[in-house]
Amino acid sequence: MFSEDLYLTSVTAKSLYEKYAKDLPIVDFHCHLSPREISENRRFSNIGELWLAYDHYKWRVMRAFGIDEELITGGADWRDKFLAFAKILPELAGNPLYIWCALELKRYFEIDGPLHEGNAEAIYDRTANMIAERDMSPSYFINKSKVEFVATTDDPADDLIYHKDIAQNSAYEHCRVVPAFRPDRAMGVERPGFAAYIKSLGTAAGIKIKSFKDMIEALEIRLVAFKETGAMINDNGLTGFAWADYTKGQVRRVFEKALNAENAGAKGVEKVGGTKGTGAAKEAGAAKGACAAALSAEEIDIYRSAFLYETAKLYAKHGFTAQYHIGAYRGANSAMNAILGPDTGFDSVDDAAGIRSFGTLLDRLNSSAGGLPRTILYPIDINQFEAFATLAANFCGKGRGWVQLGAPWWFNDQYYGIIKQFESVGSINPVALSIGMLTDSRSFLSYPRHELYRRALCSYFGAIVDRGEYFSGEEALGKIIRGICYENAKSYLGLNK
Amino acid sequence: MFSEDLYLTSVTAKSLYEKYAKDLPIVDFHCHLSPREISENRRFSNIGELWLAYDHYKWRVMRAFGIDEELITGGADWRDKFLAFAKILPELAGNPLYIWCALELKRYFEIDGPLHEGNAEAIYDRTANMIAERDMSPSYFINKSKVEFVATTDDPADDLIYHKDIAQNSAYEHCRVVPAFRPDRAMGVERPGFAAYIKSLGTAAGIKIKSFKDMIEALEIRLVAFKETGAMINDNGLTGFAWADYTKGQVRRVFEKALNAENAGAKGVEKVGGTKGTGAAKEAGAAKGACAAALSAEEIDIYRSAFLYETAKLYAKHGFTAQYHIGAYRGANSAMNAILGPDTGFDSVDDAAGIRSFGTLLDRLNSSAGGLPRTILYPIDINQFEAFATLAANFCGKGRGWVQLGAPWWFNDQYYGIIKQFESVGSINPVALSIGMLTDSRSFLSYPRHELYRRALCSYFGAIVDRGEYFSGEEALGKIIRGICYENAKSYLGLNK
Amino acid sequence: MFSEDLYLTSVTAKSLYEKYAKDLPIVDFHCHLSPREISENRRFSNIGELWLAYDHYKWRVMRAFGIDEELITGGADWRDKFLAFAKILPELAGNPLYIWCALELKRYFEIDGPLHEGNAEAIYDRTANMIAERDMSPSYFINKSKVEFVATTDDPADDLIYHKDIAQNSAYEHCRVVPAFRPDRAMGVERPGFAAYIKSLGTAAGIKIKSFKDMIEALEIRLVAFKETGAMINDNGLTGFAWADYTKGQVRRVFEKALNAENAGAKGVEKVGGTKGTGAAKEAGAAKGACAAALSAEEIDIYRSAFLYETAKLYAKHGFTAQYHIGAYRGANSAMNAILGPDTGFDSVDDAAGIRSFGTLLDRLNSSAGGLPRTILYPIDINQFEAFATLAANFCGKGRGWVQLGAPWWFNDQYYGIIKQFESVGSINPVALSIGMLTDSRSFLSYPRHELYRRALCSYFGAIVDRGEYFSGEEALGKIIRGICYENAKSYLGLNK
Repeated sequence: MFSEDLYLTSVTAKSLYEKYAKDLPIVDFHCHLSPREISENRRFSNIGELWLAYDHYKWRVMRAFGIDEELITGGADWRDKFLAFAKILPELAGNPLYIWCALELKRYFEIDGPLHEGNAEAIYDRTANMIAERDMSPSYFINKSKVEFVATTDDPADDLIYHKDIAQNSAYEHCRVVPAFRPDRAMGVERPGFAAYIKSLGTAAGIKIKSFKDMIEALEIRLVAFKETGAMINDNGLTGFAWADYTKGQVRRVFEKALNAENAGAKGVEKVGGTKGTGAAKEAGAAKGACAAALSAEEIDIYRSAFLYETAKLYAKHGFTAQYHIGAYRGANSAMNAILGPDTGFDSVDDAAGIRSFGTLLDRLNSSAGGLPRTILYPIDINQFEAFATLAANFCGKGRGWVQLGAPWWFNDQYYGIIKQFESVGSINPVALSIGMLTDSRSFLSYPRHELYRRALCSYFGAIVDRGEYFSGEEALGKIIRGICYENAKSYLGLNK
Repeated sequence: MFSEDLYLTSVTAKSLYEKYAKDLPIVDFHCHLSPREISENRRFSNIGELWLAYDHYKWRVMRAFGIDEELITGGADWRDKFLAFAKILPELAGNPLYIWCALELKRYFEIDGPLHEGNAEAIYDRTANMIAERDMSPSYFINKSKVEFVATTDDPADDLIYHKDIAQNSAYEHCRVVPAFRPDRAMGVERPGFAAYIKSLGTAAGIKIKSFKDMIEALEIRLVAFKETGAMINDNGLTGFAWADYTKGQVRRVFEKALNAENAGAKGVEKVGGTKGTGAAKEAGAAKGACAAALSAEEIDIYRSAFLYETAKLYAKHGFTAQYHIGAYRGANSAMNAILGPDTGFDSVDDAAGIRSFGTLLDRLNSSAGGLPRTILYPIDINQFEAFATLAANFCGKGRGWVQLGAPWWFNDQYYGIIKQFESVGSINPVALSIGMLTDSRSFLSYPRHELYRRALCSYFGAIVDRGEYFSGEEALGKIIRGICYENAKSYLGLNK
Repeated sequence: MFSEDLYLTSVTAKSLYEKYAKDLPIVDFHCHLSPREISENRRFSNIGELWLAYDHYKWRVMRAFGIDEELITGGADWRDKFLAFAKILPELAGNPLYIWCALELKRYFEIDGPLHEGNAEAIYDRTANMIAERDMSPSYFINKSKVEFVATTDDPADDLIYHKDIAQNSAYEHCRVVPAFRPDRAMGVERPGFAAYIKSLGTAAGIKIKSFKDMIEALEIRLVAFKETGAMINDNGLTGFAWADYTKGQVRRVFEKALNAENAGAKGVEKVGGTKGTGAAKEAGAAKGACAAALSAEEIDIYRSAFLYETAKLYAKHGFTAQYHIGAYRGANSAMNAILGPDTGFDSVDDAAGIRSFGTLLDRLNSSAGGLPRTILYPIDINQFEAFATLAANFCGKGRGWVQLGAPWWFNDQYYGIIKQFESVGSINPVALSIGMLTDSRSFLSYPRHELYRRALCSYFGAIVDRGEYFSGEEALGKIIRGICYENAKSYLGLNK
């Protein structure tokens, strides 16, 4: 049976959780929910769809058990997909999917017992009835979970029409939903479709983009438009990144090369030495054949460095918080990605994040006139938590927790990764400064991940108290916990205004 | 006194171990036992010989305590060597040798108390009597430990005569002993003796090897011969490896250069820039002066990439499981290695395994006609467990746990490393898919390492249950435990047929 | 309230600590205390000065909370600085500063309760009275803490006048204070002021330095002078280090270039490819503009390799212990460092220590006529503990624990880092060989860090005993504990003579 003592193995931890964490609302400042589905308040029909329509975590684990792709992303119906997943669930001891599923069944469907092959059909039917009866939709899950704030992830060229609709929708009167500005496609100078994308970005901004400078101008126009809908958050997905010093002329030429090369129909990237290089060289090697512009690894690094520097200056200028998701190794299985597209569960952790590249970026920004924006770093390599935490603490001159480590991301978003981050970061920077958890999810049922995080936090602090390492009293600790779980994010992002 | 509660500090852990793990037979699918000693069922005379004749773990720790080499690998007699080791044993708190020794004394000699300088002579004599009385030999330890399957490590040029004899030996009627195919010498294009080895490989295969293509053909002939004796496992020792794209012409030329250069008596490797490079460059730098063919780092990387790709295709074709032991830094003390040879306790963990190089290899194989063989990855860097686990999960389309992380290897083969792997891998890929433990040992007394692993496993799962993270019941968990400890290996390797 | 059970959560741990660790004297073989302040036995006036005059740990955490620099390193008075720090202290749960402060208040001022904004003024006044009444000075803290040995950190060009005075000062009759030989400035060939420094080194040694060979000779003259004052320890701060093979001619030319370039007023370093390189390339990129000699990354690596090799030979020859602090990423915030200077709290962990570079250095020394000096390695990256521990164990032929890992350094000098090191190193090399803790501190109040370390050690061993992993008895374990906490350092450093 699901236990309300989950992760709270000491009296201290349990007391901290009950008193200070359990009932707080949720500020979910980074996710991949569809603004359209939020806006249309789309109805779901069954738990198979809810669980398996978008969730590449589940797809991935099903593949690891050798389940046929037909039952994962293929044409099988939701019931059969759900049954296939339910069959392996009891084997997921130690995997976050086990407890995420348990929490979702408990919190949204009041199901206490373990899901397994034997009761999967009954649970499928029972939850289908509940979904229909309770009219479960995005707003249902958001309101039921006491979510006060949601930031989705949006392209600068997006017209934000769904976000404008959401703002008018009374179903969300208790939750503010804003877009976040994620210009990955503008950073992807080496990717196919770059020139076409830049054109559409120009259209969205109402200018014609002929140069890198024009593009930055267009991005600023769009950033202001985002801000006008209430946005205050940026996000970036970075795979390899090696800082390269550059001149404006170099950047201009790379940009023009990319624009023209693609327009001229060029294909392929210059040979860059296999997987031996750092930064762009690695990825270019990996993505070979899929690239549009024939850019060298050095040209890509120059472009990225300039792009990250110039866009961060925009975030500082307009009061946005910058987020960097660092070090994913995307599309490791190129054959499956060719079939299913990106973000379908074939990604890995890279092992070469390069702390000095980020250090140089932050240092240059910090020395610039506008200074650093508020910045959250999300290294994907669990071994980089310490190095990035020490880096962040060097750049907090502008305010409390100005640069900080984000909650454990992707593969690390589970009890082991969360505890590891508390232990390592707490030993280097105070955990009290953290703005806490976010779902990063594509599913409307993921809010219990905040509950998991809060339980882990209280378990961590409970252990510290119990070994005599902290004795300022429960109330002082309660204040820290409330901060991490809820209040820090609000003040950091300016949501109290 | 030795405690039967070893590592089982909770009621749950103890119950899981007793019910599901304790009495299972052993499938030891990777070790370095001598087929000759197995075949001849060699008699041992005393515990000094049993413990100190081959075990570079013990040699290494004795050196760290400043013991004279004479008492380690030198001419001193077994009794004195054993006494020297017994003297430092009480100082090995926290080191796996302490508990390995304790388990071996308990399980094979019913000795409960701690070994120390004061009782070492008595234990030496008592065990010598037991060895004689019980006629302790390889088959004794194998049968006593309920070992059902052993795979040794064998060179493709080996005639497998001992393995053929073992198959006829009634002492092993309860244990299947097979060779594993380890073509490291054919991969070592830059090593002295390469050309001579290739010649002997050709002789073993019955063909004359003039080209890389011929060599692959010879390896396939030998692989089939291995298969005919019952083998189904490959193994590879990889130190630095950086994937390099190559053409067939490049590979052919490197091979020819190596063959001819050595035949012409050339020595030394071209200067490759100290230790700055990745992959082969590093090792070539390290091994300078010992190399036969004057190959550049790039040539070595090209050869290795082609070799790994082409051999893996053979494993896929013939249903072999491929194993890769990744990232050892061998022979760090060149002076001692020059005296004692390789594998004598002067090795380290490298810190640059290069996940993308392995990713590229797996991806290319996965996209090839024959697909990936079953593959087990053993990164030696404990910090690489997570990255390699995420990589493995990308390539499981052909079946349950198709690509997976192996049990913690070498320096990580101890309680701390094992628990770390369960925690990190369980959070990324389900531990339930693991085919579990192997001894990787040169000693016939190492089977209690399976016991240690099983205890650690039950301790890990016990903690998960006790914190409420798993509640599908003891039987479901018991099924997982039985799988990891015994059944998964059998079905993965096809031993049930 | 502060608890005397701090970290001792089991009966076993508590018993081990009380019986074997608690009352031992302290051997503090590496710190950054000022020989002048020790010599003059400088009086302090208040806890604000004691805590905030030098401690960049506290400065750094205050910045992370957004406190104005005026209250950190600025002109505010000690009382206000102390109040600003006290205000955030209750938020430092999980950070070592919390428990370090608690231990210092308890051990030197008998304060049990938690410090907070509400009692900060009272504690400030109370401690000021105690400081005056008890005449608290360096000798007070040293004697009160039972410190038997202190090694400061000194430049080879230093005249050691304060050390000569200390030796005559009866306030230190129970503590031996010696200088340690740290030639970082002579290694800093690429730094501004190198030529001027080399001149002053020549003056100190009484010779004129015209070549690399002369410089090594001058260093040896100074090393002997250090030895004559009782010194036996070297120390080195290494940021990036990539071993490069070199010829004597190359080294000579780099040295001459650096000497002449600076004398000619040259500025800036040649462009070295951003942050992509390893070793010197990275730092040169980071330090660009601040460098004096226009040296390439390769030239810097050559110089460093030769410098480290030649100086280590001196340490072996004169019986010094070499210490290497490896992998800091210093001065990440160049703007603040330009204002406040180095070592002011703007540093990070680098992520590319390069185990093979150190391996090559150790191997070359080990193969040389004089052999390796006793060597202690301090990698700053917590993920490198395992790799460096495996490397150290390869080179212990000259005596017990000859090459070993130092206690966790800088960011890792806290409970989590210490436990992690025990667990990882104990699993690879016996912890029993460790010469234990050092403060590495700039503050006279840091000796309770030894207490924290001892408590962590007993907590670690207690857990091992409690899970059945060690059963040689409390006395054998007590001997190990006494060794690690006190006796090993004395015999390793030859303090018993």
